[in-house]
Amino acid sequence: DIRAAIEVFFKAGPLQGKRIIVTSGPTHEPIDPVRYIANRSSGAQGTALARALSALGAEIVFITGPARVAPPAGVAVVAVESAREMAAAVEAALPADAAVFAAAVADWHVTTASDRKLKKSKDGLPHLQFGENPDILRTVAQRTVERPKLVVGFAAETNDVLENATAKRVRKGCDWIVANDVSPETGIMGGAENAIVLIGEEGAENWPRMSKEAVAEQLAERIAAALTYIS
Amino acid sequence: DIRAAIEVFFKAGPLQGKRIIVTSGPTHEPIDPVRYIANRSSGAQGTALARALSALGAEIVFITGPARVAPPAGVAVVAVESAREMAAAVEAALPADAAVFAAAVADWHVTTASDRKLKKSKDGLPHLQFGENPDILRTVAQRTVERPKLVVGFAAETNDVLENATAKRVRKGCDWIVANDVSPETGIMGGAENAIVLIGEEGAENWPRMSKEAVAEQLAERIAAALTYIS
Repeated sequence: DIRAAIEVFFKAGPLQGKRIIVTSGPTHEPIDPVRYIANRSSGAQGTALARALSALGAEIVFITGPARVAPPAGVAVVAVESAREMAAAVEAALPADAAVFAAAVADWHVTTASDRKLKKSKDGLPHLQFGENPDILRTVAQRTVERPKLVVGFAAETNDVLENATAKRVRKGCDWIVANDVSPETGIMGGAENAIVLIGEEGAENWPRMSKEAVAEQLAERIAAALTYIS
Repeated sequence: DIRAAIEVFFKAGPLQGKRIIVTSGPTHEPIDPVRYIANRSSGAQGTALARALSALGAEIVFITGPARVAPPAGVAVVAVESAREMAAAVEAALPADAAVFAAAVADWHVTTASDRKLKKSKDGLPHLQFGENPDILRTVAQRTVERPKLVVGFAAETNDVLENATAKRVRKGCDWIVANDVSPETGIMGGAENAIVLIGEEGAENWPRMSKEAVAEQLAERIAAALTYIS
């Protein structure tokens, strides 16, 4: 609407003058020119979050893998495919006041990726070797220079959500983890709704299930409050 | 348009009374609840072909993996995810007068697919075991009962297109192979245009590069002519 457009134009709102990196969507890890490893992230939550942060006045750098939903209007978009490309784009986007890593980044890439379409080997099966991808969340969270004031990671779990995500926050060194249960029966990954647990230093908050837009708006408000408090 | 709608309604055209199976799109092979192996097929060529065959009066069973383009209107759609699901759907759709296998079916599935999201193993890397998927084209082409009169396979190659596709026709036992070069620099896989080589018993025809709709219409005419000739 017009009011939102004017607000964005004048960068009014509590995040005016703040630069925030948001990653979103899946990554694709090539096996050969036609095959790749993907994941079911649609980019819906990351996109909604970038839109909500932008509506609060932030300057957004939106770094997205091949998502199913279109990127938000009015933000700088960097389109990438693999985790390694995403890591490079995040490094290039620093410094920033906050970084919100909503993308579902592959942990591994195929080190034996081929320039030609893979043919069946003698035993009929492919032999893929994997290498670890850069850990974007940990790398940024543990920076000693130019660390964003607020680093937010996401944890997509299928079991022991709270334990896994709480451990992840400590292991990565980030400020918050937004955790959710992406078991197929929840319909969350690829769906319209989300039910998150927001984990910070003080503990964990269970948010009720709501639309991804509502989650985004409330997270954006919390990020705005945190940045005001920190700076 | 109205004319097309009326034609479809009355099932006029040279393929009236013919039942044709068309497969389309990629398949997704699960690694765990969130990760999967995919390929870059958009489903554009298979969808255009189903639409063109339907416009010539055929009854279409359209069996599609998770494609980016929407299925054609007015045809029976069977949505599947993995190659094994697609194979079962094809078997269930027989008998048919013709079968056109335009889908980009994964050769392999992950036999170690997990019900829970895969965690990093001790050495930090996944250990995926693969199994061969059913060979839908060969299975249908080599049926001794209820073999469709015309079985058409597709060959997506990145090198030695003609040699690879010619050998594939013989190896699979199908009537025609529609071959194309899906090297990334051609922009064909996922793009709007196609440049095919149509390979039959009599040899190979190089078609000029044209829209996928034009390829579909000309292939549909050829299929109609072949079915008329055979029956």
